[in-house]
Amino acid sequence: MIKDFFKVTPLEDVLKLISGTDRVEMEPVDLFCAQGRVLAVDVIADMDLPPFSRSTMDGYAVKAASTFGASESNPAYLTIKGAVSMAEKPDFSIGSGEAAPIPTGGMLPENADSVIMIEHTDSIDDETVEAFKSMAPGQNIIEKGEDFRKGTVVLEKGTLIRPQEAGALAAFGHNPVQVYRKPVIGIISTGDEVVPVNEIPPCGYIRDMNTFTLSGLVKKYGGTPKSYGIIRDQRELLFEACEKACQETDMVLISGGSSVGTRDLTIETLSALKNSSILVHGIPISPGKPTILAKAENKFIWGIPGHVTSAMIVFNTVVRPCLDYLRGISNPFQKGPPLKAILTRNISSAQGRIDYTRVKLVRRDNITYAEPVLGKSGLISTMIRADGVIEVGMNEEGLLQGTEVQVILV
Amino acid sequence: MIKDFFKVTPLEDVLKLISGTDRVEMEPVDLFCAQGRVLAVDVIADMDLPPFSRSTMDGYAVKAASTFGASESNPAYLTIKGAVSMAEKPDFSIGSGEAAPIPTGGMLPENADSVIMIEHTDSIDDETVEAFKSMAPGQNIIEKGEDFRKGTVVLEKGTLIRPQEAGALAAFGHNPVQVYRKPVIGIISTGDEVVPVNEIPPCGYIRDMNTFTLSGLVKKYGGTPKSYGIIRDQRELLFEACEKACQETDMVLISGGSSVGTRDLTIETLSALKNSSILVHGIPISPGKPTILAKAENKFIWGIPGHVTSAMIVFNTVVRPCLDYLRGISNPFQKGPPLKAILTRNISSAQGRIDYTRVKLVRRDNITYAEPVLGKSGLISTMIRADGVIEVGMNEEGLLQGTEVQVILV
Repeated sequence: MIKDFFKVTPLEDVLKLISGTDRVEMEPVDLFCAQGRVLAVDVIADMDLPPFSRSTMDGYAVKAASTFGASESNPAYLTIKGAVSMAEKPDFSIGSGEAAPIPTGGMLPENADSVIMIEHTDSIDDETVEAFKSMAPGQNIIEKGEDFRKGTVVLEKGTLIRPQEAGALAAFGHNPVQVYRKPVIGIISTGDEVVPVNEIPPCGYIRDMNTFTLSGLVKKYGGTPKSYGIIRDQRELLFEACEKACQETDMVLISGGSSVGTRDLTIETLSALKNSSILVHGIPISPGKPTILAKAENKFIWGIPGHVTSAMIVFNTVVRPCLDYLRGISNPFQKGPPLKAILTRNISSAQGRIDYTRVKLVRRDNITYAEPVLGKSGLISTMIRADGVIEVGMNEEGLLQGTEVQVILV
Repeated sequence: MIKDFFKVTPLEDVLKLISGTDRVEMEPVDLFCAQGRVLAVDVIADMDLPPFSRSTMDGYAVKAASTFGASESNPAYLTIKGAVSMAEKPDFSIGSGEAAPIPTGGMLPENADSVIMIEHTDSIDDETVEAFKSMAPGQNIIEKGEDFRKGTVVLEKGTLIRPQEAGALAAFGHNPVQVYRKPVIGIISTGDEVVPVNEIPPCGYIRDMNTFTLSGLVKKYGGTPKSYGIIRDQRELLFEACEKACQETDMVLISGGSSVGTRDLTIETLSALKNSSILVHGIPISPGKPTILAKAENKFIWGIPGHVTSAMIVFNTVVRPCLDYLRGISNPFQKGPPLKAILTRNISSAQGRIDYTRVKLVRRDNITYAEPVLGKSGLISTMIRADGVIEVGMNEEGLLQGTEVQVILV
């Protein structure tokens, strides 16, 4: 008697629908503000980095061969020649049996190929130094071009800029840097029973949570949220808000409409938008099955379940990859590195859908355990107690206690 | 002949020095912008959430007992009474053998204790519905106060606000929300050989990377970076910059000074600041040993090695917990959940210090491997190729290929 009242689209197919759209345009940003942005151009080394061979230690620049076989009991005696100062090109070269004092970061004199640490030497007088260690060529130096050779790719278009990428961009003078603009994501909360955060809910009403959870998720994944407030379940109002949001943003999230009536309203409204098509009528995930994906005038519009936790799971599962795609990430569908843990209880799951179970991570005796968070899936408190979720696949009936599971942090 | 030229402070002791200082003050922020901020007050539920028992499905509100034993072959016949509309308090109650149509999110009528999904019913006529499933009390509803009961703690002071915490704060009307202000972190780059990012480095010079990597790290961990530019290795200039930064910010990072000469300069300068003391002269980690921690007028000042990669490791190891402490995080010294991987090569390490080795994560046959990144530790390219670092402990001489290691993402 269970009616299959909407046809679901497999998750892989949803992700396929996402790719192939346009990404947002690029813009220059000050490198100081580039953390978390996505590089919109390939960056090629226009010089060797470092541009000269430099010492990584305080010591003496030498030809390694001059120290071969040297030890505490059998030191090599080297003749001091010149001295290296910071930010100066030495005007001398190093020959066999010669050594020049050099500070960390100093430029290596010509023909020197290594630096012996000051701790492995003893100064005899102004002209001679004893070396107690046999050096290898390249030791305690960074060679010209050892970090990046001129003409090679430093960073590829589509790379998320972490602090280290910002450092490399600085080394090559990329300030401002060309990044993708942050996608603006419209957020529409719907529901006749929902009131704004600053109102006291009358009997039968609750405050709007989705505007805030979805805005937080959009920010977390590099977008700029733009709220369109709470829209009553009326076709004209919803149409107007959707049309406006489509014009002003790069993608729209409508949350609410979990009842059949409001769901139908959302679908009708989205179908009425100019040049629109409904791409997805449901996704085989739980929670989150009644998810809608439409496209209007080449922009994605998501109909996301109204339950706050379902909305978060749907965001993480399908909206996040879509946002990553829009903002130019080169591998938007790649999952993060798997965090493994041991399940502390059996969990059951229905076949034919992917179930997401909230878990808390607990560490005992150097082992990480995933404790399923008890409580109905509609409760925001379960997401607060959770560190992550685990996926129980389409063809699994559940997972046994003791199973090693992969945790997706939330 | 190896000279122990500075005395190191064990890592635990460095972390102990950090706690006990004042955290930054609180400020109200719009909840829409609270993602990633730290809650500065305990939040107590001033009402039940949800404030009324609600349905999580489209169906019929019933007393579960009215359906006990019902099945496809043996349906229960229920009399329809009233109908629930969204955002309205039903003006009727449900008795034995009665059912009221209710939409998802609707308020339960008095005495109803569960909702039977519409898919498990068949409407006979306007007055009678067949129910094909035996319900349990509480099924398909969220009870009044089931998420949070009035008077209980919703969120504790010191909690990092993720999207779900923003949702819970919205539910209780906390807009604006009291959070800790973002600590402002001063960044001073030093070195006679360093030029600003927008200059072409003359022979013997390189562009400043640390300002950008450190700013990125400060942003990543919830602070606001404030750059004081590149300061030459001269006592008066460095003193002036430090004094200004201490007055204007909550904590100061000075990078550079890895040679003995510039290191001594940094220590002298920090010692000369008003009410200052040098707390740490070195940390037994590699890279990153020559790290200095000073306090002046109750503010922390870090002397961080100039090598860009060492600076990043030092930040992640000791500066990040300090920043987390300042910004009010309740457990600043807790490490993130461990990401485990199998080491693909032997790595060696010196005893008596914690070694950080960069690794790339590679996934083969559902196993995650950590491949040590080759290349000298001073190279920024190694941090770009790395997904994380692994720690080789004080008392280990290395790790063997095949060992399960814990990866700290970078």
